[in-house]
Amino acid sequence: EDVEFFKGISRIPYKPDAGPTESLVYKHYNASQVVLGRTMEEWLRFSVCFWHTFRGTGADPFGFPTLIRPWDDGSNSLENARRRLRASFEFFTKLGVKYWTFHDRDIAPEGGTLSESNKNLDEIVDLAEQLQKKTGVKLLWATCNLFSHPRYMNGASTNPDAQVFAYAGAQVKKGLEVAQRLGAENFVFWGGREGFHSILNTNIRAELDHMATFFRLAVAYKKKLGFKGVFLIEPKPKEPAKHQYDYDAMTVIGFLRTYGLENEVKLNIEPNHTTLAGHAYEHDIVVASAYNMLGSVDANTGSPDLGWDTDQFPMDVRNATVVMQVILKQGGLQPGGLNFDCKVRRESTNLEDMFISHIGAMDTFARGLKNAARILEDGIIVRHVEDRYSSYKSGIGAKIEAGNTTLEELEEYVQTHGEPQRISGQQEHYENMLNFYL
Amino acid sequence: EDVEFFKGISRIPYKPDAGPTESLVYKHYNASQVVLGRTMEEWLRFSVCFWHTFRGTGADPFGFPTLIRPWDDGSNSLENARRRLRASFEFFTKLGVKYWTFHDRDIAPEGGTLSESNKNLDEIVDLAEQLQKKTGVKLLWATCNLFSHPRYMNGASTNPDAQVFAYAGAQVKKGLEVAQRLGAENFVFWGGREGFHSILNTNIRAELDHMATFFRLAVAYKKKLGFKGVFLIEPKPKEPAKHQYDYDAMTVIGFLRTYGLENEVKLNIEPNHTTLAGHAYEHDIVVASAYNMLGSVDANTGSPDLGWDTDQFPMDVRNATVVMQVILKQGGLQPGGLNFDCKVRRESTNLEDMFISHIGAMDTFARGLKNAARILEDGIIVRHVEDRYSSYKSGIGAKIEAGNTTLEELEEYVQTHGEPQRISGQQEHYENMLNFYL
Amino acid sequence: EDVEFFKGISRIPYKPDAGPTESLVYKHYNASQVVLGRTMEEWLRFSVCFWHTFRGTGADPFGFPTLIRPWDDGSNSLENARRRLRASFEFFTKLGVKYWTFHDRDIAPEGGTLSESNKNLDEIVDLAEQLQKKTGVKLLWATCNLFSHPRYMNGASTNPDAQVFAYAGAQVKKGLEVAQRLGAENFVFWGGREGFHSILNTNIRAELDHMATFFRLAVAYKKKLGFKGVFLIEPKPKEPAKHQYDYDAMTVIGFLRTYGLENEVKLNIEPNHTTLAGHAYEHDIVVASAYNMLGSVDANTGSPDLGWDTDQFPMDVRNATVVMQVILKQGGLQPGGLNFDCKVRRESTNLEDMFISHIGAMDTFARGLKNAARILEDGIIVRHVEDRYSSYKSGIGAKIEAGNTTLEELEEYVQTHGEPQRISGQQEHYENMLNFYL
Amino acid sequence: EDVEFFKGISRIPYKPDAGPTESLVYKHYNASQVVLGRTMEEWLRFSVCFWHTFRGTGADPFGFPTLIRPWDDGSNSLENARRRLRASFEFFTKLGVKYWTFHDRDIAPEGGTLSESNKNLDEIVDLAEQLQKKTGVKLLWATCNLFSHPRYMNGASTNPDAQVFAYAGAQVKKGLEVAQRLGAENFVFWGGREGFHSILNTNIRAELDHMATFFRLAVAYKKKLGFKGVFLIEPKPKEPAKHQYDYDAMTVIGFLRTYGLENEVKLNIEPNHTTLAGHAYEHDIVVASAYNMLGSVDANTGSPDLGWDTDQFPMDVRNATVVMQVILKQGGLQPGGLNFDCKVRRESTNLEDMFISHIGAMDTFARGLKNAARILEDGIIVRHVEDRYSSYKSGIGAKIEAGNTTLEELEEYVQTHGEPQRISGQQEHYENMLNFYL
Repeated sequence: EDVEFFKGISRIPYKPDAGPTESLVYKHYNASQVVLGRTMEEWLRFSVCFWHTFRGTGADPFGFPTLIRPWDDGSNSLENARRRLRASFEFFTKLGVKYWTFHDRDIAPEGGTLSESNKNLDEIVDLAEQLQKKTGVKLLWATCNLFSHPRYMNGASTNPDAQVFAYAGAQVKKGLEVAQRLGAENFVFWGGREGFHSILNTNIRAELDHMATFFRLAVAYKKKLGFKGVFLIEPKPKEPAKHQYDYDAMTVIGFLRTYGLENEVKLNIEPNHTTLAGHAYEHDIVVASAYNMLGSVDANTGSPDLGWDTDQFPMDVRNATVVMQVILKQGGLQPGGLNFDCKVRRESTNLEDMFISHIGAMDTFARGLKNAARILEDGIIVRHVEDRYSSYKSGIGAKIEAGNTTLEELEEYVQTHGEPQRISGQQEHYENMLNFYL
Repeated sequence: EDVEFFKGISRIPYKPDAGPTESLVYKHYNASQVVLGRTMEEWLRFSVCFWHTFRGTGADPFGFPTLIRPWDDGSNSLENARRRLRASFEFFTKLGVKYWTFHDRDIAPEGGTLSESNKNLDEIVDLAEQLQKKTGVKLLWATCNLFSHPRYMNGASTNPDAQVFAYAGAQVKKGLEVAQRLGAENFVFWGGREGFHSILNTNIRAELDHMATFFRLAVAYKKKLGFKGVFLIEPKPKEPAKHQYDYDAMTVIGFLRTYGLENEVKLNIEPNHTTLAGHAYEHDIVVASAYNMLGSVDANTGSPDLGWDTDQFPMDVRNATVVMQVILKQGGLQPGGLNFDCKVRRESTNLEDMFISHIGAMDTFARGLKNAARILEDGIIVRHVEDRYSSYKSGIGAKIEAGNTTLEELEEYVQTHGEPQRISGQQEHYENMLNFYL
Repeated sequence: EDVEFFKGISRIPYKPDAGPTESLVYKHYNASQVVLGRTMEEWLRFSVCFWHTFRGTGADPFGFPTLIRPWDDGSNSLENARRRLRASFEFFTKLGVKYWTFHDRDIAPEGGTLSESNKNLDEIVDLAEQLQKKTGVKLLWATCNLFSHPRYMNGASTNPDAQVFAYAGAQVKKGLEVAQRLGAENFVFWGGREGFHSILNTNIRAELDHMATFFRLAVAYKKKLGFKGVFLIEPKPKEPAKHQYDYDAMTVIGFLRTYGLENEVKLNIEPNHTTLAGHAYEHDIVVASAYNMLGSVDANTGSPDLGWDTDQFPMDVRNATVVMQVILKQGGLQPGGLNFDCKVRRESTNLEDMFISHIGAMDTFARGLKNAARILEDGIIVRHVEDRYSSYKSGIGAKIEAGNTTLEELEEYVQTHGEPQRISGQQEHYENMLNFYL
Repeated sequence: EDVEFFKGISRIPYKPDAGPTESLVYKHYNASQVVLGRTMEEWLRFSVCFWHTFRGTGADPFGFPTLIRPWDDGSNSLENARRRLRASFEFFTKLGVKYWTFHDRDIAPEGGTLSESNKNLDEIVDLAEQLQKKTGVKLLWATCNLFSHPRYMNGASTNPDAQVFAYAGAQVKKGLEVAQRLGAENFVFWGGREGFHSILNTNIRAELDHMATFFRLAVAYKKKLGFKGVFLIEPKPKEPAKHQYDYDAMTVIGFLRTYGLENEVKLNIEPNHTTLAGHAYEHDIVVASAYNMLGSVDANTGSPDLGWDTDQFPMDVRNATVVMQVILKQGGLQPGGLNFDCKVRRESTNLEDMFISHIGAMDTFARGLKNAARILEDGIIVRHVEDRYSSYKSGIGAKIEAGNTTLEELEEYVQTHGEPQRISGQQEHYENMLNFYL
């Protein structure tokens, strides 16, 4: 039980003067460094995901597994599950990350019956509890895998078969109990099969009504249980389904409002999903935050030239800076965090690549944080934006702002004041100002 | 004033046995033919749009105008505007279409001041009223152009400058008055500049709040005026803006619910916008109808390999069939219709091409209507879908349907009933069944 | 050995008057029916692919296998491989398709060494030979799987490691021998890993030079062997690689010319790959045929709103008609064919769905063939296109056509003849004419 | 004639310590600073394009012009053309850029006949010659606009009408004469209308044959003239045409080889076109350089979430670094350069925005140059890549490299050496190394 899995790798140190080939050091992430009144660790709340990093095999639709982990014998046994979990906590600890995330079925094998699955889960959760206590690593969020098992091929809560809906409900019940036990700070719903492949065989309205019912039942049970974690829906437009109902941030917000769930559920935004939905990298983070619905972020990236989810480690400092600005402005993500829903490329087969990839992403977000803090401390860009909207502070603008006018009054105003001035949007100037801080 | 503009072309006849080169006849559209209890004309409610068909020049971002219309001297004069309008009513009549649509600024030239613009508009509306009366052609919907004038470059109701918001309000006031005068059955809002080019200089939340206020003011004035037309928002994800707030059907429904406008406004869906948002052709029509929000359709198409709005004439019988099924199922589009928001290719420079393109689209939708009617009369596909969801009619399914269960009960159910059966989605069978009717 | 795998399903009959729910009959495909001087079977040369239809499990990146085949015990044994092969020949026969295709590793399990893999392959090829003889089903093409095994993760012929190049060469050597033994009419190369994920670690020029060398070695061995099948490259732009060198038809033609291989290799075009490359469905088929490089077609389709290869069964009659027109114009595809590189949806779990999907696609192409034949017999559209280019038949056009002019002469011509006339491209008229035949 | 057009703006100075709001200074671009043995000015060879910057109006498909330039009266007069040219040379000079580019029809108005157009062009070229001499600004490249005039709507050299081909030839003849007179260092061909909107009415092969003939005629005339500038084709996949023949770098290279033009023509790569073709930003620059075909670069960018050419100023330091690495590795772009084929956003209506946008892009590329130089001086990344391919330096790899082996020999090699080792591609490590330099 005291086996060391990552031999030769010790706690990743902060070494700001390291060169490009020193790969197992942080050059920017300094957990205890204070920025705008909090430590980097407090602002960034990094989390490692268990599924990609400890269950990812490198298999893709055209290729077999490539990632061989010495602790993983490839079996579905509980013993193997325990070894994986021990390896993961060593990884979290050496990396110096304080949070992890998982799906129920990642950490414990699915059994032949629900009871057996639940029993397996309980056994692993026992170990997880110990390891959490021992290491101080906490559970950012848990989630139920309602998409991999064949029973969910036509949807979980949106399945045309009510028995599958029931099964998903039973699985979420257990998931919530486990989340509570492990002190999960949030609970995520990702509806990978909640959608359709063909409109021809689908009753969209019925399915969405069922999905809403499902959330209502989960909310009720959460309250009964006294679970305090925040419910989060993670939008994704497509893949595996041809169309997923949780298309993007605005669609989910609309769904929640349509069904009166807007006070019960927030959003977990993954930028790779945002770009698949046709938006800019930061779009859904900005939108969710604007409506006080940004609960957590799956910090990853895709390739803009690819039409599927690549779950790459986020390495773009510009993007990280823009995201961190949003997070700083809303006062942080807590109880959410930056979860690395990322996988090493299937060609990155060295054990070291697991560290290198996370380190790169953490350094990227540390740079993003420092840049964003400078931007906000300087206040220049923020003031530029405020000035742009200042006409709503007085006169007719203030009346509009208050909703206290009529089309007739606006017409009169125009007849008195005539044609508005042409005011430059200065996009390139804003881009240059941003570049100044990068 | 009794000039004939389309010499040599008479009323397009229905000639079902015509060959491929007979281009000025309907081979499928037979206005008075009864299908499922209504005439084709009543189901299809075709409308010609004034902007593309009478103001389109064939100019594109890389090329100068190509479309020379003998009645159009290229000037901004009222006289020219009148000639265009007369030509258009001759066109509607010869085509045998009963509806038209326009933007305020298409039909009458913008003046140097709002008053002058309104005066120009009034003069042309006088003529429009006469021509409507004389020909029996009616106004499906009117709309205000709040995107072409430079004052709107940074948005109309979402402009950072309150004075522009005021201007847009004044323009819509007049637009509503004109719509009422001409008996418009609907009034459309398309927010081509309601969005942004750069998140850096934009306060999304402020802009969306202002947009909601704008709709509230318009609703208030509509009621004051007693205008009975239906308000419709037309979603589009992008172009000209990098991101438009009315991204797609679900986004708009969410916006309306967020701001309490869901009972005041419905949707006008344009499939070319739907595909630009990353959805299947019929997606937004299906979704809007599922929530009783489908008010009208801009019947056009794009090219799936192009990333901009091409506004092509819809020529795909499969797509028309699927759309007409939705429309038949909801009992028709009235007071909406199928508006051809389409333009001849800039290379289609013959005057005849104006007719040929509309005829092709009308024949396509006539085939779609006949196919959809056969599908619904046979009832086979509909029953297949109903059967697929039949588990929600009784037992645990009925309890779910009623929202009358708990996760605990679902867990018990699973413990009793075990693993659900694997039930084929039969997508290919549905595709074959659809193909049977095409 | 005389086990029947598809009990209750007999030879699919042609039954033109069948209704929409009769799913196990051809309504349009009548193998022996003569169209333009050949039977449907001769024109269409349908082929079933072994990989999707007999090795597909329904697994996707987010889900486990769903497709359970009673003859497949999920093992890697030769016995299992033999059962699969017997089932497949029963399927080909009951479907009435005369060709099949496979990858070496689909039909026989990869062993621990190359020799063992080759031995496995030989054993299965023995059985395949028997089954081909017994049923009359022939091998349209064989191919080597140079992408699934982890050794190929960084490429096969373009791998930075020469030892992998060598391995790929050895595998293709055996593949060619097997292809010859089974009388393959073609041999396909699909370079799923010939490309890159990151330009940062890649020497593109070195990799392409190696790829060309690989083809030269294969051509040399083919000649030595006396194998008469046609070599075909199958373009695909991306997936699994971020960028694949065989991007599209024009890219491959350029590659072949750059390296002097244009007389040794033709193209196998898959429309789902074409659309992923940003082209229209039929584009690469048209382009390859225009340069006499169209060797074969993987008859499938994707969803235009999805950014990955869905390998759906082709069900669109319009697309099938356009493709068949190209094929008829070039005098047929022989020795190539229409290979169904398609998979049932993972939700289509019934054994019957295997038949239904192929039947639907075959009926679609039979309709396409009949439509295309009518178009060409009528000759109207063809003549329209010829007329459009008729100016190159005489005068200055003929001189241009012959390359027999100069810019000076063209300038003189313009000074004499002035501005060209505006000639309508009549796109909508062409679309209507095509619709006439659909 | 000594009017100052940009009053209040003087020569843009280099001021490395300037703050974010100081917008009219270079913070990174220091023309005379030596990097890797050349000045920044020599490596970067910046060029301003006349069309966007002095003919751009801000009009878009949905909006009227927004950009009002005090020197431009909007007329087509020669006097206006002269004022624009004088303003542009003041702009080049104040910006401190040494090159410009133009289309024939940008600088001088098209006349009613070719002779009149040529006469207009001659008059303006007289002035351009004077201004070039006076300011020292040189012509990076000239090009002919063969896409805006309606005569080219169906193509220039690929037009179905031979008379249009002739017209295009005559126009290029004059363009070459003008280019020679002004000492153009290159001559660009961008085939915006060389493609199609519908395959139905198009003979692709005939059109491509004609296009090749066109280039042959241009090459012949170039030689006759003794013009020494390099011919460059600029690839673009689509827009305005639905499909353009010069799709991307590989397609153009293939075209040139197919028609034996590979020694006469190189490529001008525009990254915004590259991304529209579905590739990564730097892809076509890398590919063209790998085949010694990279002649020049149109330094701009698009938005990955938009499907059309936005021609934005390039502001991404990571992209600029990667591009500059390629350029440094091939020893520079000369006689090509970095041409800003960019336009200010139509909302950037201040005269200052013209400067701010160019300054931002120049600073971005200056940072890219400095980063790339450090990367190459350190040599670490380069050596990593070389090591990755080192197996081709000896043994079986060297034989493969030399093309001096057979499949049989490779098989023997595998039988002796067995399974290759799994070698990590280390993508994340490369990304981290790159980030080190950004």
